[in-house]
Amino acid sequence: MISRKRIIYSKEFVGEIQLTDFEIKTDEISADLTENEILCEALYFGIDAGLKMQAQFYPTGITMISGQIAKVIESRNNDFPKGSVVYGKFGWQSHTKLQPDVLTNKTFCYILPDFGTHSVSLGLGCLGLTGNAAYFGLDLCGAKPGETIVVSSAAGGVGNHVGQIAKINGCRVVGIAGSDEKCKWLVDELRFDDAVNYKSGLFPSKLLDATPNGVDCYFDNVGGLLSNAVILRMKQSGRIVVCGSLSVSNIKVGDKIPQMAELSRNFIFHELKMEGFVVWRWANRWMEGIERNLKWLDEGKLKYHETILEGLDKAPEALIDLMKGKYSGRVVVKV
Amino acid sequence: MISRKRIIYSKEFVGEIQLTDFEIKTDEISADLTENEILCEALYFGIDAGLKMQAQFYPTGITMISGQIAKVIESRNNDFPKGSVVYGKFGWQSHTKLQPDVLTNKTFCYILPDFGTHSVSLGLGCLGLTGNAAYFGLDLCGAKPGETIVVSSAAGGVGNHVGQIAKINGCRVVGIAGSDEKCKWLVDELRFDDAVNYKSGLFPSKLLDATPNGVDCYFDNVGGLLSNAVILRMKQSGRIVVCGSLSVSNIKVGDKIPQMAELSRNFIFHELKMEGFVVWRWANRWMEGIERNLKWLDEGKLKYHETILEGLDKAPEALIDLMKGKYSGRVVVKV
Repeated sequence: MISRKRIIYSKEFVGEIQLTDFEIKTDEISADLTENEILCEALYFGIDAGLKMQAQFYPTGITMISGQIAKVIESRNNDFPKGSVVYGKFGWQSHTKLQPDVLTNKTFCYILPDFGTHSVSLGLGCLGLTGNAAYFGLDLCGAKPGETIVVSSAAGGVGNHVGQIAKINGCRVVGIAGSDEKCKWLVDELRFDDAVNYKSGLFPSKLLDATPNGVDCYFDNVGGLLSNAVILRMKQSGRIVVCGSLSVSNIKVGDKIPQMAELSRNFIFHELKMEGFVVWRWANRWMEGIERNLKWLDEGKLKYHETILEGLDKAPEALIDLMKGKYSGRVVVKV
Repeated sequence: MISRKRIIYSKEFVGEIQLTDFEIKTDEISADLTENEILCEALYFGIDAGLKMQAQFYPTGITMISGQIAKVIESRNNDFPKGSVVYGKFGWQSHTKLQPDVLTNKTFCYILPDFGTHSVSLGLGCLGLTGNAAYFGLDLCGAKPGETIVVSSAAGGVGNHVGQIAKINGCRVVGIAGSDEKCKWLVDELRFDDAVNYKSGLFPSKLLDATPNGVDCYFDNVGGLLSNAVILRMKQSGRIVVCGSLSVSNIKVGDKIPQMAELSRNFIFHELKMEGFVVWRWANRWMEGIERNLKWLDEGKLKYHETILEGLDKAPEALIDLMKGKYSGRVVVKV
């Protein structure tokens, strides 16, 4: 028998996530496997703002959802030999036993490609879902060399990656983030052309200064009023991709947030396009994204910033702090 | 000399349009033409909600903008012989003298194709800009047979036309309009599958009843909160085209309108697409649209409802009443 530790999504998220919304449980599971089963041990959990929205689709009482990097510690499946390292949507739990039927679903679980000398934790970040959301989302946006792209939540895992690829592609990149420190990092370290702290000063006027020639593309991680202000700066045939909606993540049923009325006028007159996406749309090109990002990483063209928090129990706090804007870059919990 | 009557856009539109925002002026213009010039006399003005937004891009003091159907009463241009009937963006004025340079711009002025027995006034409606906004806009939306399409301002010139074509294409069509009478017309006369009066009862719940299987496509003529409610009903890979923004047309600088917060979440999870358009995007396919609509008209598959108001002076009142929802179908002023 194996002692399994799980963090349960025990109370429905209403407004800001609370520590009391979670419960830690320990139970025993058998280590015996039937044919084609495998047993995994968690190495890292991925922490990102999207988890809140996604959890809200499930009933409480389940293991809190998230992606993890795990090691196969027992195997009766030739496709997943003992010792291999996988990405899997196993949630916040220390051990996971997997039946053969789910193992054929490559959007649920796959063996990590060879990352060379890089940490396998990057399989949750720039060499996984985060990096692929950036890579394919930016492709959907169709930002051309010379065009101005604005990225919201630009210091976040997806945002900072998007900005860096857009720079590689020859765009003028303007980031929006929630502190001067984050903005400084984006400009000084990641070579963004400009970055605007939306929490200081009059945001629309600072955005105007940062985008004197208007905005061609907008990679939106936050939604809400901030996004409306960006959309109002958009030019003819501008393109918006909607990857996240962090700014409205604490909204409760019945709440309303303000929208600027000029929005739909600008949509018409500038013939804007906006499209939402879930990164698994590109499941059949998944490895292409990872390999492309790995190449940029190895060439030194792509940097990543990873915050590693130690201990399975830290996951709820990490998520709460992330949604309050505490971190830059990708956040993972080392189990 | 010819006596020319003009309606001037004399005071900037703020909030609802007022009669006092216009001034009528009469002056004399020479009937003498230089080479390749033509002189036109107005037959009909087109009245639509878009005029307000468009006028706001111009300084006051100009002839109020609008399309018109006019007769060439003098010509020294072989491409526009005397007696021909044209569509032109000549504004609310009785006579227009045109230099050769503008006559080569087919989005500014063109000779109407043969409408058979139909009134030339339809060149402002279902056989002109209105019909083409419906035809090409619906094409952009990509509504497939069996899919549910919602049309806002469905009793308006563009809206009722969109719904009819969508029916021809085999869609389930749900209209949104501002009175029971309009809704009855849409269902009984135009064979919409359902129509919802957004002014009576709880709109989101009535919309739910009318779209039990969700919404695939949304042809948006109004924007604002009503559109948000529709977007929240949209299914996976839903498509929105933004043609008009009537509901926010009286918004003043500094005003805000409420937006429901779930909007961007639905954009992401259902991977929605939204695109704004100006109908002149399809200038090079203009006649295709007119001919297609004419064929449907002749086959009895397309109906039109035209309100004709008599007298050039009636144009401002017609526009004000239209924006308050007084009319169904296309509104024109007979000069």
